Amino acid sequence: MSVKGINRIAIIGTGAVGGYYGAKLAAAGNEVHFLARSDADVIKAQGLTIESLKSDDIHLKDVNVYSNASDMPICDVVLITLKTTANKALSGILKSVVGESTIICSLQNGYGLEQALEDEFPDNKVLGGLCFICSQKIKPGVIQHQDFGSIRFAGADDESLQRVVELFTDAGIPTQTSDSLEQARWEKLVWNVPFNGLSVILDATTKEMLDDPKSRALIHSIMMEVIAAAKAHGCELNDAFAVKLMELTDGMSPYFPSMKGDFENCRPMEIQAIYDSVIQSAKSKGVAMPQTTMLSQLLSYMDHG
Amino acid sequence: MSVKGINRIAIIGTGAVGGYYGAKLAAAGNEVHFLARSDADVIKAQGLTIESLKSDDIHLKDVNVYSNASDMPICDVVLITLKTTANKALSGILKSVVGESTIICSLQNGYGLEQALEDEFPDNKVLGGLCFICSQKIKPGVIQHQDFGSIRFAGADDESLQRVVELFTDAGIPTQTSDSLEQARWEKLVWNVPFNGLSVILDATTKEMLDDPKSRALIHSIMMEVIAAAKAHGCELNDAFAVKLMELTDGMSPYFPSMKGDFENCRPMEIQAIYDSVIQSAKSKGVAMPQTTMLSQLLSYMDHG
Repeated sequence: MSVKGINRIAIIGTGAVGGYYGAKLAAAGNEVHFLARSDADVIKAQGLTIESLKSDDIHLKDVNVYSNASDMPICDVVLITLKTTANKALSGILKSVVGESTIICSLQNGYGLEQALEDEFPDNKVLGGLCFICSQKIKPGVIQHQDFGSIRFAGADDESLQRVVELFTDAGIPTQTSDSLEQARWEKLVWNVPFNGLSVILDATTKEMLDDPKSRALIHSIMMEVIAAAKAHGCELNDAFAVKLMELTDGMSPYFPSMKGDFENCRPMEIQAIYDSVIQSAKSKGVAMPQTTMLSQLLSYMDHG
Repeated sequence: MSVKGINRIAIIGTGAVGGYYGAKLAAAGNEVHFLARSDADVIKAQGLTIESLKSDDIHLKDVNVYSNASDMPICDVVLITLKTTANKALSGILKSVVGESTIICSLQNGYGLEQALEDEFPDNKVLGGLCFICSQKIKPGVIQHQDFGSIRFAGADDESLQRVVELFTDAGIPTQTSDSLEQARWEKLVWNVPFNGLSVILDATTKEMLDDPKSRALIHSIMMEVIAAAKAHGCELNDAFAVKLMELTDGMSPYFPSMKGDFENCRPMEIQAIYDSVIQSAKSKGVAMPQTTMLSQLLSYMDHG
């Protein structure tokens, strides 16, 4: 905790996720430092704006924004919101903002992220946050918040977990906690694995894919592959969870998942994080994922990265 | 055999396949009757043209062309070259051209076609022909022959098989025969199942898909699924056959398979014939085809039909 109880927070990646949560945390009075790279100049000049379709807009002026992590201060809490496709730069970035008591929290998509962080920063508390949010960067410095926004946190010790939860709760962000980071990650993958890749391959929204009986069956079948892999990792998940997720998505506004946005904007897709790490992990438990593997192969062919 | 030893042949569907082989058979002196539907008027007025990138062009004038099968005569040999997506009309069509000694030969893609014909015409000889040809209809009455053109025939009795083989051989069309129609059909499916669907989904030629290591691995993996299904049907096929087919395709000019042409021209794709009949047949032998099933589901979503 910094002086006067103000939290000093680093946002590593000011995109659809980092921009939104960072702005909410800053609006709540925290000292937030944003790493933004190519957008840093625009944000410095014009501020950071959240246009929300569901709640009040936010406009931050005088943003602490950086294009180089080496200019950033050591922070109390570091939120990793980079695309995983930029993870090769992560290690160098974190050295600038992580001190001995810094809590590191990954809000990235994928599997195995926290383990890699714990390996690299064995003396720090590492936790994961699973974001249930529909948002997109519509231009530099402007994030459109479409729906939802809650985060499920898990990992680290109770004290660190509680501290991060309070930070977000105090900023008006709904939070839940999970006893098992493993379980929470797999639960999110059950959604991410089918919807992200299929939206790219079929050029379709969640609703379009769920309304067609063949693609709906495929979504269910891929979810069951992920659930089988999750079970092999000791998670408690079953068919009812797949059905529940599909019905929950039926109730959402038609949505293009983040991978579709990456593809359309010629950014590399998070194939390693959302697919290959999962396939590899399932394989290590003797579970084959033929359809998930095929998704990864199709996406790899299509990838601009 | 008609008067004076001239064969009377019906071509049921004057597209890339039927137009090409029908024109070759007519050019060799046979009496060929073409069912052409929407293209009949153009062919009647302008004739039927084969533009070949590999051998001499053919131009037939005064073509016996029909838009209604009921105007066609009973023929000695009936070649079914319709897209399988039009098969619901097939039964009605065949009643017009099949007499008691007519040989029926399906040149269509897919699985289970001859069995359905035998069930409907138990007193006729039914055989199948597997066409190894790259051709496309470029406009009504004009077929572009790009490469290859041989046919592997199988089925029926030796006499009928031999008669059809001679018919084609005499017209300068390379032929082979196979003792097992089952085996010949499955061998062709090992190529058709991966290349047709993936070319649509990835918007890619055979060469583009084979040159990328991820899609090449996927092609091999789908071929192995088809080979497993073929083995369950008593066929002798192994991994070496998949590798051989891929290497043979490496040596071909870059090619868009027929399903890609159907998709681009907003025609329904042959999903039932090339995928669903195969999946169903494998399932009846206890063999799951998860990747082939996924291909069928993706294509069904994309299908215009």
